[in-house]
Amino acid sequence: MKHLSIIILGLLTFNSTAQNDSTFIKSIYNEALSNGKSHEDLRSLCKDVGARLTGSAEAAMAVEWGKNKLEGYGFDKVYLQEIKVPHWERGTKEAGWIKNNNGELIKVHLLALGGSIGTNGLLEAEVIEFKRLDALKAAKKKKVQGKIVFINQPMDEQQINTFRAYGGCYPMRGNGAVEAGRLGAVAVVIRSLGIPIDEHPHTGGMNYNDSIEKIPAAALSTIDAEKLSEVLENGKARFVLEMDCRSYPVVTSYNVIGELSGSEKQNEIITFGGHLDSWDTGEGAHDDGAGIVHSMEALRILKELKYKPKHTLRVVFFMNEENGNMGGKTYAKIVKEKGEKQIAALESDRGGFAPRGFGCDGTQEQVEFLKSLVHHFKPYELSTFEKGYGGVDIRPLKDEYEGIPLFGFIPDSQRYFDFHHSPNDVFENVNKRELELGCAAMASFLYLIDQKL
Amino acid sequence: MKHLSIIILGLLTFNSTAQNDSTFIKSIYNEALSNGKSHEDLRSLCKDVGARLTGSAEAAMAVEWGKNKLEGYGFDKVYLQEIKVPHWERGTKEAGWIKNNNGELIKVHLLALGGSIGTNGLLEAEVIEFKRLDALKAAKKKKVQGKIVFINQPMDEQQINTFRAYGGCYPMRGNGAVEAGRLGAVAVVIRSLGIPIDEHPHTGGMNYNDSIEKIPAAALSTIDAEKLSEVLENGKARFVLEMDCRSYPVVTSYNVIGELSGSEKQNEIITFGGHLDSWDTGEGAHDDGAGIVHSMEALRILKELKYKPKHTLRVVFFMNEENGNMGGKTYAKIVKEKGEKQIAALESDRGGFAPRGFGCDGTQEQVEFLKSLVHHFKPYELSTFEKGYGGVDIRPLKDEYEGIPLFGFIPDSQRYFDFHHSPNDVFENVNKRELELGCAAMASFLYLIDQKL
Repeated sequence: MKHLSIIILGLLTFNSTAQNDSTFIKSIYNEALSNGKSHEDLRSLCKDVGARLTGSAEAAMAVEWGKNKLEGYGFDKVYLQEIKVPHWERGTKEAGWIKNNNGELIKVHLLALGGSIGTNGLLEAEVIEFKRLDALKAAKKKKVQGKIVFINQPMDEQQINTFRAYGGCYPMRGNGAVEAGRLGAVAVVIRSLGIPIDEHPHTGGMNYNDSIEKIPAAALSTIDAEKLSEVLENGKARFVLEMDCRSYPVVTSYNVIGELSGSEKQNEIITFGGHLDSWDTGEGAHDDGAGIVHSMEALRILKELKYKPKHTLRVVFFMNEENGNMGGKTYAKIVKEKGEKQIAALESDRGGFAPRGFGCDGTQEQVEFLKSLVHHFKPYELSTFEKGYGGVDIRPLKDEYEGIPLFGFIPDSQRYFDFHHSPNDVFENVNKRELELGCAAMASFLYLIDQKL
Repeated sequence: MKHLSIIILGLLTFNSTAQNDSTFIKSIYNEALSNGKSHEDLRSLCKDVGARLTGSAEAAMAVEWGKNKLEGYGFDKVYLQEIKVPHWERGTKEAGWIKNNNGELIKVHLLALGGSIGTNGLLEAEVIEFKRLDALKAAKKKKVQGKIVFINQPMDEQQINTFRAYGGCYPMRGNGAVEAGRLGAVAVVIRSLGIPIDEHPHTGGMNYNDSIEKIPAAALSTIDAEKLSEVLENGKARFVLEMDCRSYPVVTSYNVIGELSGSEKQNEIITFGGHLDSWDTGEGAHDDGAGIVHSMEALRILKELKYKPKHTLRVVFFMNEENGNMGGKTYAKIVKEKGEKQIAALESDRGGFAPRGFGCDGTQEQVEFLKSLVHHFKPYELSTFEKGYGGVDIRPLKDEYEGIPLFGFIPDSQRYFDFHHSPNDVFENVNKRELELGCAAMASFLYLIDQKL
């Protein structure tokens, strides 16, 4: 009988080579869908911590939250990685009004762009509208000087992948203040980078150029952008703006890291994760609370199923993706300096929607490898396996590790820009089942690359 | 110059053979996404008409609404098709309580199942729980007699396609009253066919058997089903139920029909549509307001783009899918009697979510034809083209037209059973962009089958 027990025990012990990939992936999905922790973990991150802009008290609490969670799941190693991060605060004053030709006021919904300077009291000037950043760049200085520049480029709703539409509008947000400032404008207000016509403004990162006068920058809700444009069609208009946002000195923060140690190649690391920071509006539920719990839950599931990874699987909760990427940049530098061997990286930073596939930022051979995995995901309705982007946080690894493949999780993109960087990005707008399917897709993908790379 | 004008006019006139499929499909998507009417039409159906159970005043208004809309879009023919439909009403009393061993009461959220008889005042009895319909079927009469049967089968969350999970629970709703009545139960309450654990009960159709005593039937919200099960784990429980729902005599209603006449084969019909009726809770937004506007908008787009179909494209807003399918059954009978040639049918009745593909209920050859269309949809992220179900409303065509292929539009299924047949199925839970992409997919599919069948 003893002999038989040993055989049975042997059979019960997880053996990845003996176990069929499809059976194991099915067990990953079952665990995610029947015993998943991701939805409750996301609720906790959104409600117990809240929005967590780099440098804020909430960001510090998010670091504690992340470390506690990873320790609670009992991974082999859990530690913090110290980094220096920028610190910007919205302040307490943030308001804007359209003033039409008759002096009538329309209050608008707006958010300062992240990194903007304040207005130092009430700022009022005539508005000049541009339909695109390029039109502003081509404008004469005397037309713009002393005015508030309004850039009103809508996201292109005809793009099927909404990230392409976002990419098309990104320069307006990133460089609007520089281009308007170059021409002597006193402030810039842009149309929010959001798809629906609604009252929710969308904030986001922006740049200044040290050789050009810095001017305040804000995003109007799409509905207010349409209103302002309509007022301007009927004559001149002025805009009144007050914001007391400002930057503070660099502070210390942390990336939060957990590991399942490799059983065969412990020194070869697969890094994966999302970013722990968020903008200070909404709750950072899709951006990127979803990526945090996708990644943590993927590792939890693999551990729960007693999977022994060949390589070390390292989950990283990166800090400061939104306004500096110091988490990603510092991580890449530190692991390179330590002499670690990083063999692949994976990021989830496109929301908690139903999974569609994975992208690969890599060589043709690496893209072909990615494509070879598609059949594993057919039962789970993922079909997009193609050349693509990895993620902002893992991108710096490319500079340190030539030839490293970077993978990006691709959920359905249709609803992302309803929520992104807006007060609407809250827990209630993440669907439990879609989130859980994302976790299962991430865990399955990690399993496959650990097995096959 | 005149000669040149004629050439230009000739080029501008739509010519399907000269025009590349991919260019035309792109123009369909652009129209749906930039000038789409579907979201506003759905708002109007949900808010100006409301929930529209067969036989209700709202169902009559929905018929008027549909005819007005189709006439407004200027299709070649618009008409009503008279049908006889059942008429059941929920009444004004609908309440239930769990009473535990100590007589303590817990009020529950419930909905009578559609077609149920009322309780004729307060009904109270001991509860007996079954985990599945099969367990009830196997039970001894003396265990069940005089009791309220509670069937508590959850939808299987491990099914990736949620319609499979729905199919697994459907017999509990459809046949629970018959099986419980056969064993002498005085009422049946089932766990709602919904995936989230929440307070929203989900109604739906049910059957009686004339040879078995009819008993009242209701669905508890999933959260209340869990509570009742928990109470029963700790001892006996009673359930108190009052409902005054009842059936009324058959009434007259209508299918609403619009057509774009075929330019080559006018007598060959492609029928497509959704169902105009809904349950009387929520607003029937996903089920099946989405299918109504998908279909109407598909035809509007083709007309707007000056497409001249080869075959007659006929949109049908079927009445009474939810509790009798008299719209679908009568339509099939009438068109057969008229000697019409029906060459294919398409239905949208799975909600207004992001499109994933189309299914075909047909021969192997017809399924292969469907699969041959997949490449047209790759830019639009549809990849599921396989054997499948058409739809309840078009199914009767199969009995009249041997060999007719039936196609079903397949949107993403993950969120459907959060809303289906519940107070949650409201306009606000339909995403504009996802809805519009569904309209474009439907129009593109109609174009392709019109061209290639």
